Amino acid sequence: MSTTLEYSQTLARNSRLAAAALAPLAAGKKNAWLQRVANNLRARSAEIVAANEIDMSAGAAAGLSSAMLDRLKLTADRIEALAKAVEHIISLPDPVGEVIEGQRRPNGLFISRVRVPLGVVFFIYESRPNVTIDAAALCVKSGNAVILRGGSEAIHSNRALQSVIEESLISEGLPQHAVQLVNSTDRSIVGELLSMGNLIDVTIPRGGRSLIERVTREATMPVIKHFDGICHVYIDASADKTMAIDITINSKCQRPGVCNAAETLLIHRDAVDRLLPALAKELQSRGVELRCCPASLNMISGGVAVTETDYGTEHMALIMSVRIVDSIDQAIEHIRRYGSAHTDAIVTNCVASSMEFEAEVDSAAVMINASTRFNDGGELGMGAEIGISTDRFHARGPCGMRELTSYKFVVRGSGQVRS
Amino acid sequence: MSTTLEYSQTLARNSRLAAAALAPLAAGKKNAWLQRVANNLRARSAEIVAANEIDMSAGAAAGLSSAMLDRLKLTADRIEALAKAVEHIISLPDPVGEVIEGQRRPNGLFISRVRVPLGVVFFIYESRPNVTIDAAALCVKSGNAVILRGGSEAIHSNRALQSVIEESLISEGLPQHAVQLVNSTDRSIVGELLSMGNLIDVTIPRGGRSLIERVTREATMPVIKHFDGICHVYIDASADKTMAIDITINSKCQRPGVCNAAETLLIHRDAVDRLLPALAKELQSRGVELRCCPASLNMISGGVAVTETDYGTEHMALIMSVRIVDSIDQAIEHIRRYGSAHTDAIVTNCVASSMEFEAEVDSAAVMINASTRFNDGGELGMGAEIGISTDRFHARGPCGMRELTSYKFVVRGSGQVRS
Repeated sequence: MSTTLEYSQTLARNSRLAAAALAPLAAGKKNAWLQRVANNLRARSAEIVAANEIDMSAGAAAGLSSAMLDRLKLTADRIEALAKAVEHIISLPDPVGEVIEGQRRPNGLFISRVRVPLGVVFFIYESRPNVTIDAAALCVKSGNAVILRGGSEAIHSNRALQSVIEESLISEGLPQHAVQLVNSTDRSIVGELLSMGNLIDVTIPRGGRSLIERVTREATMPVIKHFDGICHVYIDASADKTMAIDITINSKCQRPGVCNAAETLLIHRDAVDRLLPALAKELQSRGVELRCCPASLNMISGGVAVTETDYGTEHMALIMSVRIVDSIDQAIEHIRRYGSAHTDAIVTNCVASSMEFEAEVDSAAVMINASTRFNDGGELGMGAEIGISTDRFHARGPCGMRELTSYKFVVRGSGQVRS
Repeated sequence: MSTTLEYSQTLARNSRLAAAALAPLAAGKKNAWLQRVANNLRARSAEIVAANEIDMSAGAAAGLSSAMLDRLKLTADRIEALAKAVEHIISLPDPVGEVIEGQRRPNGLFISRVRVPLGVVFFIYESRPNVTIDAAALCVKSGNAVILRGGSEAIHSNRALQSVIEESLISEGLPQHAVQLVNSTDRSIVGELLSMGNLIDVTIPRGGRSLIERVTREATMPVIKHFDGICHVYIDASADKTMAIDITINSKCQRPGVCNAAETLLIHRDAVDRLLPALAKELQSRGVELRCCPASLNMISGGVAVTETDYGTEHMALIMSVRIVDSIDQAIEHIRRYGSAHTDAIVTNCVASSMEFEAEVDSAAVMINASTRFNDGGELGMGAEIGISTDRFHARGPCGMRELTSYKFVVRGSGQVRS
C-alpha cells in the first residue's frame, strides 16, 4: 500500500457519503451556503490575500512567467469579484429535481424523468485559484460532492479558500465533506483517485494537453475532457462585408489564446475580390500573421505560404491560415478534415447556405453570422460553466450545472403490474 | 500487425464515413429504408429460416441448452414479428434535429440546442438474432452507423439478416456501410475495435458479466453498460394488502430471470402481521424460496435463513430474501447498502413515505405502487430500447433512440461579436 492510498480512499469515501446527503437538499439550503461563502470571502479577504502572497513569492522564485503570476494572483478586488460570482450562482435555478419530461401511460402510470446529481466529481485544474470557488459553488448547487485538486503553485491560496468553504458548510449544516481539497501536491494521489471508479462518478480535467491525456489514460470513470479548438470562419459568396470583417476580427483577435478563437479563414472565391484585401489588411493591422493558400498568397502582401500542418494546428496566437474555396461544400469538407468539431462559423446572407452549413457541420457550436467567441457557458445562457467538453457523450460544449446531473425515472401508480 | 487489424480498421473507417452521410438524412429516407427492411424480411423469410437452421443444428450438436436454442431459433412467425417491430420504429419520432431547448439572448442571438446522432455505435450482443434487426433499425433511425457483433452461434442467421439490411440500404440510397456485421467470430476483432476510440463513439455490450467486464476494461470510447439488477420491493406500514401482494408477486415471479425482477422483500414491522403470512403463502405457492431474516423466519414455515450474501446477489431465479425493517429509513438504508440502483419499489398509502422514498432512493427507476417490472423502454414510453444502462453518465435506465444521440448548439445572429 502506498503512503497516500489511505488518504485517497478516505477522500473518496467521504465524498460518497457527502454526495448521498447532498442529493436531496432543497435549493434554499444550498443557496444559504453560497451566501455564507460570499460573506466569508469578504470577511476573510485579508487572510486569503496573505496566503496567496506565499504562493506568489514561491512562484516568482520558481520563475513563473508574469502571465502565470497574474493568473495566480488574488487581490481584495478579485476576491470581491469571486464573492459576486458566487452570488450569481444563487440566482441560477437549481437543476436537481427538474422534471425533464413526463407522461401518463395507457395503463394509468405517471412516468417522469427527474434530474438528479451525478454524485461525486473529481475536478483537476491548474493555476487560477478563483476556479476553486467557482467549481465548489457549481458542484454543490447541482447536488454533487467534489474533490478539488488544484495546481501545486496555488496550494496556500487554495487552502485558505477551502477553509472558507468548509467553515460555511459546517455553519449552514451541509455535509462537511461536500467539498474536499486534495491537501497535498503528491501526484500519486491523482492516480489513486482516478482508479476509484466505484466511488467517483466523473473526472473533469481542466488544463494542458498532458494533464488531459494522463487523465484519459488512467481514469476508470467517465471523463469530461477538453481537447483542441481548431475553429473556422467561412465567408460565403453572399457575405455582408462589414459583418465578415467584424466577425473574423472578433473570432481571431479578441482573445487569441482561448479555445474558441478562430484558426483558419475560409473564403468563397466569389467573395475574394470584394472582401479579402480589406479583411487581410484589418487582420494584419492587428498583428495577425496570415498563412495563405497559393491563390490567396498572390493577393496578400506580407502573407506566408500555409502548410498542411497549419490547417490542423491550434496556434493560440495571432496566426491565421487563409484558404480560398470553390464552394461551400469545399469549405465544409475542409472543416471536417482539419477541424476539431469545436466551433465553426459561417458569414452568409444566403438561406440555403446557412441551412447547409448548419446541417453538415457537426461541431459543438455552429455559428451563423456570429463570432466563434460566443461558444461559452455564459454567452449561451447557462449562467456559469465548469468547463467545455469536446466529447459527444453526456455533455458537449460548455458544461453548466445541468451537465453535472443525471436523471432517474419516477413511476407513480395505483397498484399496476405487468402482464 | 495482426491478421485481422486491417479488417477491423476498414470496418471502423467505413462506419465513420457512413455516419457522416447518415447524420443529415431526413426521417422520410430513414423510414423508407425501414419499410424496405420489413418488406424484405417477409419476402426472404424462407431463406433466413434456412440460414438459421444451420445455426440451430450446430447449436444442438454443440450441446446448447433448450432455452438457448429457443432464443436462437427463427421461424416464419418470428420473422413476421421482427418485420412488425421494424414498422413500429417507423412510427416513432426521429430524434435527430429535435430542438431540445432554445432562447433569445439579450444581444439578440438565437441559441438552440439541437439533437444530433452520436456517430458510430459498436454493439456487441449474444445469441438472439432478432436483436440484429432491432439494433440496426434503432441505430439508423437515430442517424448512427452501427457495427454489429453478434454471437458466434448465430453467425449464419446474422449473415442472412445483414444481407436483407444491406440490400435495403442500397436500394433506398442510404450509405451501404450504415450497418456492418463483424463477419467473423475471431475475438481479436472485438479487442481491435474497442481500441479505436477515435473512430467509434460508443460501445454497447449486451450479454453476460464477463463480456461487459471485458468491454469496460478494454474500451477506449464511452460504454453504455448493463450490470446487475438487485431490485427491492418495500412494503410500508400503510400499504394496501391486495396491492402489496400483487406488486410483490409480479415483481418477483412474472419473469424472474430478468434484471428488473425483485430480489428482496422489505416489510415494515407494523405491516407484518397483517400482510406477511398471506404474502409468503402466495409467493411459496408460485415456487418462490424465501430466505428470511431472523424475525421473519419464525413466521414463515418453509423459509430458510437469509445470509448477507443473499442480500447482495442477483439470483435471477425464484428466490427472494425477506427482511422486516423498523422504519422506512431502515428500508432505504438497506436499499443503499445492498441494492444496485436499478429499480426499487415502495407500496404505501402514505404521502410522506412516498415522497421520502422518491427523494432518498437514487435508483434508475423508483416505483411508487407499481411493479419493478415496468423499468423497460417500452413500458416507460420510449417505444423501443437498445439496452438498459446501469450507469449514471449520459444514459440511465432504458436506452431508446434519444439516448443514442448527442446535441450541438446552433447560434443564429446578425453580425454579433463579443466585447
